[in-house]
Amino acid sequence: MIDIQTHDIQFSTKGQTDIIDITDHIQKVLAKTGKQEGQVFLFAVGSTTGLSTIEYEPGLVNHDIAESLEIWAPYKKHYQHNQTWGDDNGGAHVRSTIVGPSLHVPFVDGQLTLGTWQQIVFLDFDTRPRQRKVVVQVIGK
Amino acid sequence: MIDIQTHDIQFSTKGQTDIIDITDHIQKVLAKTGKQEGQVFLFAVGSTTGLSTIEYEPGLVNHDIAESLEIWAPYKKHYQHNQTWGDDNGGAHVRSTIVGPSLHVPFVDGQLTLGTWQQIVFLDFDTRPRQRKVVVQVIGK
Amino acid sequence: MIDIQTHDIQFSTKGQTDIIDITDHIQKVLAKTGKQEGQVFLFAVGSTTGLSTIEYEPGLVNHDIAESLEIWAPYKKHYQHNQTWGDDNGGAHVRSTIVGPSLHVPFVDGQLTLGTWQQIVFLDFDTRPRQRKVVVQVIGK
Repeated sequence: MIDIQTHDIQFSTKGQTDIIDITDHIQKVLAKTGKQEGQVFLFAVGSTTGLSTIEYEPGLVNHDIAESLEIWAPYKKHYQHNQTWGDDNGGAHVRSTIVGPSLHVPFVDGQLTLGTWQQIVFLDFDTRPRQRKVVVQVIGK
Repeated sequence: MIDIQTHDIQFSTKGQTDIIDITDHIQKVLAKTGKQEGQVFLFAVGSTTGLSTIEYEPGLVNHDIAESLEIWAPYKKHYQHNQTWGDDNGGAHVRSTIVGPSLHVPFVDGQLTLGTWQQIVFLDFDTRPRQRKVVVQVIGK
Repeated sequence: MIDIQTHDIQFSTKGQTDIIDITDHIQKVLAKTGKQEGQVFLFAVGSTTGLSTIEYEPGLVNHDIAESLEIWAPYKKHYQHNQTWGDDNGGAHVRSTIVGPSLHVPFVDGQLTLGTWQQIVFLDFDTRPRQRKVVVQVIGK
């Protein structure tokens, strides 16, 4: 029978478009539920973060994604957000809204259906280290 | 027991990357269902819109997001879409496809698990005022 | 009663931001399940792909989306990913992570609640033709 269970994972980030592979965390949550078929739903709590998938290799993760985002949401730029709040993370907020906080990954026979070169990542766009939480809901049977 | 209920919310928008806080609407829909644990699923009907989360403050909402999107999908540019259909909203369509129409937010103990500075927003990228509909499905127990 | 069923669709793509209308495929999968109310969940397997919705007309699909993405993730550019792996698809990976692999569309009375000018699309950002798979889970009653 279909059921829904809510968990969360917590971890530290460095900010500055820190891209963290959380695939193992998610697989462990899934394994604990014992569910065989359904969806894992991940939600990033916070407004300077994002969730997506990527081939988790250093070139993309430490350089290419950040460089591309600098083109349209550079960290060093005049943002109204920064001026209003005496803040420095306007670019992080812009990136977060475009990438989005919500991701689902299916599972079948108790296994995530990711591609071979596809990992689940949490993106921390903020300008400083943070403690982060991702809500993980497993819905399935 | 897990059930699914479909509702919708409707509202007017001004277009031109009008970013509307719909968190209260969603909380009211959720409260009516009486469900305690699950997911609220929002789907933006239309191809010049988007859904995401943001810290809902005037700098980001009225200025910074729009300025960043202007870099890669400016409203005033030659789009094939505009030429083919005698239209002026090619940039709105491009923004919509990249941001995406679909968002889920978890709830636990009947409350959305949003961050303190994280609101649910509907983004209307179109070039003119519109009447909009968001389908809201509550799945949970 | 709520149930969940997993299917998949497979198809060939040309790459280079090939945007494919998969709405009919999804409607057929939905029709086979006989479900009346719920969500169709689509997940793109692979790290150079994406899922979204669009008004499926040639100007946007063959020109405008690709041109906008060229601004911040051009195919012809020096990516660390390409240098490390002797590859040429760094820009495809960047596009994929920002657009995202996961999409849900609601259905009511057995019909997807898409807008009149809103189709479901698979985006293949890779630089060469590929054989692709999208996992399709129908959850509903």
